[in-house]
Amino acid sequence: MSTPTEHVPTDQGALEANSRFYEALERGDLTAMVALWAHSDDVLCAHPGRQPLRGWDRVGASWQAIFANGGNPQVIVTDECLTRHGPVAWITLTENLLSGGQAGAATALNLFVHSVDGWHMVGHHAAPVLL
Amino acid sequence: MSTPTEHVPTDQGALEANSRFYEALERGDLTAMVALWAHSDDVLCAHPGRQPLRGWDRVGASWQAIFANGGNPQVIVTDECLTRHGPVAWITLTENLLSGGQAGAATALNLFVHSVDGWHMVGHHAAPVLL
Repeated sequence: MSTPTEHVPTDQGALEANSRFYEALERGDLTAMVALWAHSDDVLCAHPGRQPLRGWDRVGASWQAIFANGGNPQVIVTDECLTRHGPVAWITLTENLLSGGQAGAATALNLFVHSVDGWHMVGHHAAPVLL
Repeated sequence: MSTPTEHVPTDQGALEANSRFYEALERGDLTAMVALWAHSDDVLCAHPGRQPLRGWDRVGASWQAIFANGGNPQVIVTDECLTRHGPVAWITLTENLLSGGQAGAATALNLFVHSVDGWHMVGHHAAPVLL
């Protein structure tokens, strides 16, 4: 469903796109993840502790593999902080993760670009918090 | 020194700003680091394994503390990849780090914004590569 915030780039629209990312992650919803991401060669995704993947083919395949293996954790997002320059927005936050009885935290920088059909994710850079 | 690439936002100018970051890091050059960063409340810096710092006051203080403790590693940058949307650019890369006889790797996402006085760093998000 299209909402008014999708037609022009707003802070609220970018925050809603960010929420859709974590909803898709928690549900293991590949369809929603595919709809959220831009399908371009220069998207990037660094899963915590891993080398970054570049390009939608690799990024999409990684989500497919993660969800196929039941890798959809419970995520409580804290310290969400948005910066927007026109049609480009990034959001930093802490991911408090619960998966298979294990708890951990990562800090993430999520990048979004607005186009005619709304905000799409172009980058997810997650870093394990070790200290 | 001002260069032609500093007056308009170009890929090359953003890449040069990124190089200045690693030169300052390797030399432990606080003056160069201070000149490179935007001094705004919404800059962010996540050192590898740490929670992100937000705002120039905290980010600048962290570089001062790191350099005061001799924390300037040798860094070999590989897999540099730039994306630019007008005056906003981000560069992902691998930092191959050598410090005190220890070697390690981190993946970084560096964010830059172009203004009238050239490109400034607004974000550095580093993630240790564990796997």
